[in-house]
Amino acid sequence: KPKAAVTITNPHPYWASLQADIEAHLRQAIPIKEPLVVFQPMHHLAFSAPRTTVPALCLAACELVGGHRHLAMPAASALLLIQAATHAHEHLPLTKPRPIPEPEPVHLYAPNIELLTGDGIVPFGFELLARSDDPAHRNSERILRVIIEISRAVGTQGALNAQYIKTLGSGAQSDGKGLSHVERIKRAAEKKEGGLHACSAACGAVLGRGSEEEIERLRNFGFYVGMMHEMLKRKENNEEEEEEVIIDEVRNLALKELQLFKDRDVEAISTFINF
Amino acid sequence: KPKAAVTITNPHPYWASLQADIEAHLRQAIPIKEPLVVFQPMHHLAFSAPRTTVPALCLAACELVGGHRHLAMPAASALLLIQAATHAHEHLPLTKPRPIPEPEPVHLYAPNIELLTGDGIVPFGFELLARSDDPAHRNSERILRVIIEISRAVGTQGALNAQYIKTLGSGAQSDGKGLSHVERIKRAAEKKEGGLHACSAACGAVLGRGSEEEIERLRNFGFYVGMMHEMLKRKENNEEEEEEVIIDEVRNLALKELQLFKDRDVEAISTFINF
Repeated sequence: KPKAAVTITNPHPYWASLQADIEAHLRQAIPIKEPLVVFQPMHHLAFSAPRTTVPALCLAACELVGGHRHLAMPAASALLLIQAATHAHEHLPLTKPRPIPEPEPVHLYAPNIELLTGDGIVPFGFELLARSDDPAHRNSERILRVIIEISRAVGTQGALNAQYIKTLGSGAQSDGKGLSHVERIKRAAEKKEGGLHACSAACGAVLGRGSEEEIERLRNFGFYVGMMHEMLKRKENNEEEEEEVIIDEVRNLALKELQLFKDRDVEAISTFINF
Repeated sequence: KPKAAVTITNPHPYWASLQADIEAHLRQAIPIKEPLVVFQPMHHLAFSAPRTTVPALCLAACELVGGHRHLAMPAASALLLIQAATHAHEHLPLTKPRPIPEPEPVHLYAPNIELLTGDGIVPFGFELLARSDDPAHRNSERILRVIIEISRAVGTQGALNAQYIKTLGSGAQSDGKGLSHVERIKRAAEKKEGGLHACSAACGAVLGRGSEEEIERLRNFGFYVGMMHEMLKRKENNEEEEEEVIIDEVRNLALKELQLFKDRDVEAISTFINF
């Protein structure tokens, strides 16, 4: 299978188009207004965190099940904001040193402002979601479901659990005793990259009014997307000698989940694994 | 008016009964389970933060408009959890010192765990709310409304704004130029204690199926409750020579908001201002 010379930092135009739409939406939702000391760092935090494929996958899943991407915009925005808050808090300088992920971001603001801004942006993400309720469209059940999905995926059983694992080692897992370093890294990736992409795709399908089966297939697809991206990243960073054959295996598992949608245009969402 | 020798730390039995119900509910919602390194600090954080009258007022407002208190339990729980997270983050030791409110809590866990736990408990609060949706009761619109109310009251325009004001001075207010120290303290109290109590009472009225007028009266009542408590606290701590006459004025404003409910039993909720 020929692969274009695109990496995660220089991704496919479809991803770029979705990401641009989300950022345009957020620029309206987070205007730079008075008091500037509050809203400037909020704006900065939202737009300076590393871009990921998580929010865009939410729109792609929504489109695949036949929904207009704007239906999934609040969930994509909330996911982007919460990931940005996590990133800020991961890099907070605490008095007791802890492993802080590379690369170190440029700190434009003092630690207390970064802390407050991260704290402020998370409820704002949930507010955006709740506000997108439109009684005329009878979508409140779906929005509440998405709020639960996102709370779990970002919380102590989800992405934050990955941070506990990285911070505390295998003690952070209920079944983690005796796990090797490599296995712990994999477990953390399942919780963070895998779980967030799975959540994002499932939420997109929920908001696009997909069937239960479509939602679950897309949740699985998202999980494989996240795992594959993590493997590729580690490979690029030479952190691990991940074998190409394993990455291809994960890609094939992801493609299999799309078989349900064979009568639709799966080309667009396939760009999340074919690059 | 004779006043019992009860203070905010030794409050009325009605408050104590409501608070006990909320804590019993949370003990079930946050079991101490595996992995202990994740759930023990979460449990500790939820139950060790200073108790406030905010969550209980939510149940009291719900009861006043004729709802059973269990209807407002998810909102009361979310408010308690988010206040606990704020308390933990307020006392995080950052490398760049900042004013940290007294009293210093006992830190059972390392700063990184306190940071993660605070971050984890906020989405969990929203999850509790969203999960309380019961299609049979057609309450999803009300729950989404409460999610918006709480997001705003705790976020950068609400309680967090008070922290910005304390951290940054009048620069944290859009109209704050030239405000004196005393005025800034008052503004911060309006955003934090006033705003949180107002939100709590309004949410209780929403979930108890109160009318729009009842919701707004209880929102105002809550605001005065919060302001009065803050004045009493500052007076007890000898931080300020708040005149008794001003406190009585605020109490009277609060009582006025209850006139709408004159045909109901207002005695219970009045204990939030008569002590």
